[in-house]
Amino acid sequence: MKIEFSERAKRIKASEIRELLKLTVQPEIISFAGGLPAAELFPLEQIAEVAGDVVLKEGKAALQYSPTEGLKRLREIIIAQRLNPIHIEATLDEISITSGSQQALDFTGKMFINEGDTVIVESPTYLGALNAFLAYNPNYVEIPLQEDGMDMDKLEEVLESGVKPKFIYTIPDYQNPSGITMSEEKRRRLIDIANKYDLIIVEDSPYAELCFDGKQLDPIKSLDTEGRVIYMGTYSKTFTPGLRIGWVVGNPTIINKFIQVKQGADLQTSSIDQRIAAEYMSRYDLNEHIRMIIDVYSKRRDVMLDTMKKTFHKDITFTESTGGLFTWVNVRKDIDTKELMQEALKENVAFVPGASFFASSGHNNYMRLNYSCMPEDKIRVGIERLAKVLNKYYE
Amino acid sequence: MKIEFSERAKRIKASEIRELLKLTVQPEIISFAGGLPAAELFPLEQIAEVAGDVVLKEGKAALQYSPTEGLKRLREIIIAQRLNPIHIEATLDEISITSGSQQALDFTGKMFINEGDTVIVESPTYLGALNAFLAYNPNYVEIPLQEDGMDMDKLEEVLESGVKPKFIYTIPDYQNPSGITMSEEKRRRLIDIANKYDLIIVEDSPYAELCFDGKQLDPIKSLDTEGRVIYMGTYSKTFTPGLRIGWVVGNPTIINKFIQVKQGADLQTSSIDQRIAAEYMSRYDLNEHIRMIIDVYSKRRDVMLDTMKKTFHKDITFTESTGGLFTWVNVRKDIDTKELMQEALKENVAFVPGASFFASSGHNNYMRLNYSCMPEDKIRVGIERLAKVLNKYYE
Repeated sequence: MKIEFSERAKRIKASEIRELLKLTVQPEIISFAGGLPAAELFPLEQIAEVAGDVVLKEGKAALQYSPTEGLKRLREIIIAQRLNPIHIEATLDEISITSGSQQALDFTGKMFINEGDTVIVESPTYLGALNAFLAYNPNYVEIPLQEDGMDMDKLEEVLESGVKPKFIYTIPDYQNPSGITMSEEKRRRLIDIANKYDLIIVEDSPYAELCFDGKQLDPIKSLDTEGRVIYMGTYSKTFTPGLRIGWVVGNPTIINKFIQVKQGADLQTSSIDQRIAAEYMSRYDLNEHIRMIIDVYSKRRDVMLDTMKKTFHKDITFTESTGGLFTWVNVRKDIDTKELMQEALKENVAFVPGASFFASSGHNNYMRLNYSCMPEDKIRVGIERLAKVLNKYYE
Repeated sequence: MKIEFSERAKRIKASEIRELLKLTVQPEIISFAGGLPAAELFPLEQIAEVAGDVVLKEGKAALQYSPTEGLKRLREIIIAQRLNPIHIEATLDEISITSGSQQALDFTGKMFINEGDTVIVESPTYLGALNAFLAYNPNYVEIPLQEDGMDMDKLEEVLESGVKPKFIYTIPDYQNPSGITMSEEKRRRLIDIANKYDLIIVEDSPYAELCFDGKQLDPIKSLDTEGRVIYMGTYSKTFTPGLRIGWVVGNPTIINKFIQVKQGADLQTSSIDQRIAAEYMSRYDLNEHIRMIIDVYSKRRDVMLDTMKKTFHKDITFTESTGGLFTWVNVRKDIDTKELMQEALKENVAFVPGASFFASSGHNNYMRLNYSCMPEDKIRVGIERLAKVLNKYYE
């Protein structure tokens, strides 16, 4: 039988990372390749208690179909607990629940991108966003990252030259993959630029709350006086990714269209997952749980960076991330980290080659390392193994 | 600010039914408009027990990210319990979990439809499928339903004329909205036609197990020797819709593409929901639960049909459905059921006007009635109210 997929589907490929991760599951491999939260920190007993209670006490509603935009109570909790403290004001018609942030990214592509439309992304950026948008065939324009975030001079130059993007996609806090955070000054400049050029900003913020130094910056959305920022949050990194609960915040016209798109895409996010989340957030203090995660992750980050400083050749540079899950390593330009990966696997250590995180080809001398889901001693040993492989190239 | 949605997003509109349902929530209204399973039949205590156990015993995995294609154990259970008994053989690479059947419909559109491609649908058909596909802008060709399903002569005529559809979409059992079931003879003829013209069939099967007369027919997929049927099942109508668990079964090339599309769309279906379902299906007998649902729904169907026979004018016809959730009423051609709905609401009874279930306009003399989620006495009173409104037109 001849199967004729759509042009759109032909563009969609399996994520290289997902394929790669399959290679790294053997127990002898120390893998920095994943992007997972630490499962040993999940509050199992509390979630088990809440899950049972929610089904028994609210079961008829918890197991029935429910509104596409999400449970009102959960949206109220997210506004009060997760948005207002970071100075985002939102009414109930300005927020919709999504099945994780990934769904919000797919819907954003679906809602805005006609074939050939320009989308501005950071270089590098989140692979899953590139893949989600790719289905709708945009023309990517990349803006390089600097130590304090997107190169705003370059952005202005591009816009001044007449490029008119459908939106600018940014992960301002502890970016995936780079670990870089956009400075307060640049956040202000970005919103000024968006106002000047009448642009939409898509602010993807899964990591902001995993702030190790107490200096969490206000989101770009908090500076938005014209309803042009679409803000995406999630419980996947601060609570649990297994529940698949994210949220998207924006002006009512945009949120209303998100809801219409969601009706056709999956009707609604799991009723029971939404109720488990809402009940947990009412009974327990997520901020306290986040402080515990931060304590563990920041120590792991310390061990990773310290070991890299001690063992990596001095010409190898990396991000000293102050939050989130990742650091990003820059090796000599002629080293292809995809080839390096094969050698690393022989030494039983794994990472993600950086090339997949760029909209354009030819960025082969980067790697992403994750420190969130591994004990400190393993991080130390893994980095030592990686140093052994890497340093050979610098002899 | 000027918001410029994609052409795709401009086509997507709020479901008329969802808007309508908002009008029917007042307690004094007896609403036959929904399509909900009866919440009072959900096995709350068992699900509560299972949910708590799953989090406590498998929590680290149950709350972590998990594979896009779905939990292996759940896929094995679905194959053994739900597919093999209806003579569908499938290996693990021929099935993927979806976040409800609605997601499988959206992905089918995304995977196959280029703008202007032809899709063949039944007339009438499921509104949510029409809306899901609409995002990808197909050209719909409608094939009328007869008492025993799609008009196969008409289908052959259309294909013979040179129409080359991307797929044929059918709901063969207790169709939504018509309540009609495709005969065994027509199932065989449909697969022969698909083989002859090298076509893909999308078989959407949410209701087949809600069979009231013990005469459940084998699915079209069970007759498929060439891997050209994409079969969709769900727990939404037989267990609970709140968990959002469906499955799609097809040849490995197609399922692999489904998985790639799902990676970009929402990464995965809720890990905890999948484990709750798998554990419930291991501990309890879903078939027994389904028998209980059938017992309740078939009595409600009896009351609805009996009351209609007693009270509706003799020229009004309707489907004597032998399973599922709906009956479908055909009134005189000059009666517009959207207008009728306004009068019905005055009498505190509601239904869904049938026009939304057609890809083309001008089918205004139908209505869909749901009998699954209301006690028998309310059904009787509601139908009597509806008869009062309707019969006026026949005086």
